[in-house]
Amino acid sequence: MIESEISRDRMQRRLDRLWEIGKTDRGGVTRLAYSEEENDAFEYVLEEISAIDSMAVEEDSIGNVFATTAPEASESLYLGSHLDSVFNGGRLDGTLGVVAALEAIEAVEASDEEPEIPPTLVLFRAEESARFGQAMIGSRGALGLLTTEDFSVVDQSNVPLWRAMQEAGFQPENLSEPTLDLNRIAGFLELHIEQGRVLDETSTNVGVVSSIRAPVRYRFEVLGDYDHSGATPMSMRRDAIAGAAEMITAVEEIGIEFDQDGDIVTTVGDITVSEGAINKVCGELSFPVDVRSNDRQFRDRIEERIVSSLEAIAEDRDLVLNTECINQTDPVELDEDMMEHLLETAESIGTSYRRLPSGGGHDAMNVQRLNIPTGMLFVPSVDGVSHNPAEETSEDAIEDAATVFARSIVDGVP
Amino acid sequence: MIESEISRDRMQRRLDRLWEIGKTDRGGVTRLAYSEEENDAFEYVLEEISAIDSMAVEEDSIGNVFATTAPEASESLYLGSHLDSVFNGGRLDGTLGVVAALEAIEAVEASDEEPEIPPTLVLFRAEESARFGQAMIGSRGALGLLTTEDFSVVDQSNVPLWRAMQEAGFQPENLSEPTLDLNRIAGFLELHIEQGRVLDETSTNVGVVSSIRAPVRYRFEVLGDYDHSGATPMSMRRDAIAGAAEMITAVEEIGIEFDQDGDIVTTVGDITVSEGAINKVCGELSFPVDVRSNDRQFRDRIEERIVSSLEAIAEDRDLVLNTECINQTDPVELDEDMMEHLLETAESIGTSYRRLPSGGGHDAMNVQRLNIPTGMLFVPSVDGVSHNPAEETSEDAIEDAATVFARSIVDGVP
Repeated sequence: MIESEISRDRMQRRLDRLWEIGKTDRGGVTRLAYSEEENDAFEYVLEEISAIDSMAVEEDSIGNVFATTAPEASESLYLGSHLDSVFNGGRLDGTLGVVAALEAIEAVEASDEEPEIPPTLVLFRAEESARFGQAMIGSRGALGLLTTEDFSVVDQSNVPLWRAMQEAGFQPENLSEPTLDLNRIAGFLELHIEQGRVLDETSTNVGVVSSIRAPVRYRFEVLGDYDHSGATPMSMRRDAIAGAAEMITAVEEIGIEFDQDGDIVTTVGDITVSEGAINKVCGELSFPVDVRSNDRQFRDRIEERIVSSLEAIAEDRDLVLNTECINQTDPVELDEDMMEHLLETAESIGTSYRRLPSGGGHDAMNVQRLNIPTGMLFVPSVDGVSHNPAEETSEDAIEDAATVFARSIVDGVP
Repeated sequence: MIESEISRDRMQRRLDRLWEIGKTDRGGVTRLAYSEEENDAFEYVLEEISAIDSMAVEEDSIGNVFATTAPEASESLYLGSHLDSVFNGGRLDGTLGVVAALEAIEAVEASDEEPEIPPTLVLFRAEESARFGQAMIGSRGALGLLTTEDFSVVDQSNVPLWRAMQEAGFQPENLSEPTLDLNRIAGFLELHIEQGRVLDETSTNVGVVSSIRAPVRYRFEVLGDYDHSGATPMSMRRDAIAGAAEMITAVEEIGIEFDQDGDIVTTVGDITVSEGAINKVCGELSFPVDVRSNDRQFRDRIEERIVSSLEAIAEDRDLVLNTECINQTDPVELDEDMMEHLLETAESIGTSYRRLPSGGGHDAMNVQRLNIPTGMLFVPSVDGVSHNPAEETSEDAIEDAATVFARSIVDGVP
């Protein structure tokens, strides 16, 4: 039985070891895209892979890693996730998907099963947008979905992506061309923590993802006048902070007003004040806005409404508003056959399971975008916590999900 | 005639030279408290002083400088201001007061006048709160108004004030004791740009300050939960940024509601987000609030209203609000006789003048607080601009104000 080859302890040991890489004072993890910590995490997983007989490893020109037991096979089922994190994020986001995929592949390898389509482990780089404001850089690069302009985006210290890649040891080549042989990818599977509360609140161990809600992202820059706080009457101010406060409230109100069963979410997750001071009226700041929905048309309407509301506020206050759309990603419906396959497999191993949409974006959506059959499993986030040191998932759920993957590999891509 | 000894060109040359010290790309000045740039500015003024015969210079243990033509005199009229600036501030704030006081003293020295009470030039350190969140550190230290706790306040890099003083080359001693012999100070005069629009809009060259509006300052810390922006429904969030936006709007609305002829001003001049990201609901930030009025009782009522409004918003949103009062300074009425003396002198030299209150706090208020007769002159800020690279004042006004000072020295403290 494949089930008996799945080892909770091995997964927990690997998760614990990866937790040490970039661990923060508050028990979280900071392992940014193309940082030394991300490199260290890749190196650790590569060591673990090297202990498995017969795994052939390839690294592409932007640092993604692909490891397979059957390099000669013309088709393979790819499985994996990412190893980077947000600032002070949790220890499971991405990392658990890598550890569970490796576990499933190891279990199949250790069993006497010979899957028709052999598996390939995938370690993507730079899934989180925390450093560059752009998400899923590694998977987009692997699949040929990165534009040459994307390589010029900069981090908070103005380091461009291409330089960060070089500093991490990579030489991006043939930009915009896939680094993978797309014909070899028979399917893709990714496991991830839910990052919401549905599975936790319904005591479900395994979620089978139906669709992925994707973001449209803006950066708004607000310009007013710097003035002396004590000597400038309220009526003579062009206060960028007061203007932004009204704008941020509008973004939240629009999200609340149009919320349908939690489908739309509108978020301002940061504010960057230029030369702020306790004794100055502020003249310049910027903030990002992230809007998500499963429904592209609906999301477009919300987006228009946010932009026009913010423009109206800026006009009322005689502020300058510079609007930049950073990215605009379509929501994705995952492959129906793959979904059925995963649901049946979950049923067959006797775990609790349900279909649900994904609130966050994931590397899997990029693979599905190329019409490669893609499936995704969620495991519960205790209290729905994510991007937070308190991320937690029960060992039971992790074991069940890894087992579904191992069995899916054996049973073959639909 | 003393008037003929006042040199516009000398003042402009010194202002231009000081502008170079800490000059920013945008034409402003960043010369923070106890920075290398502040040290350089002091050094330059000391060089200029050394060229004047018979000036004796003393530096106290926290870096303030006092230069007098009559060290043996038992009483002296002190005049001066500060040389530090806010981030990317203007070239006149503080600096002009030093240059004009030096000019007045030099003019008296060059004339054949022998003032009964000889002058002492004062260069205070660290008047701006931009670095340490505390204003007028130098003058408070000189006058014995700094508490030992004040020496532990930290800057944005967590450097405590006492260490910054040491790094700038000073060894603070006898903390809380005045570094000056207070009995020697027969009076104090300070010249400053208005930092508001009254003089500019009424085409007045010289303002005689009646009272100084003083701030009460708070720092509010807002704590919520970090969550995934895509996977956390609006209704499940405890969003620190959305909460702070509502709070900042409340601070502004209270200022506007209670504004009486521009007397009350309420300002949020900065926001510091912890671990913000485009794809996270924010769990922690802080912002300062600065409230000023000429009327202490009125200001107390506004302050209470702000604190209770912010507490109500935090409670509604299930956020934690930590409230810290950073400082609370009483408004100050300047010495009536000194004011009359300055008004008469302005009349006698035939310039345009008027009485007006000060919106900003100034070192002068600390001297008046010790019941030492204190007077203050304002010159117009073109367009009311201050704490901004665009600070400007006409050479005419500067000459007139320096002349009023020179004449006041000769005529004697009332």
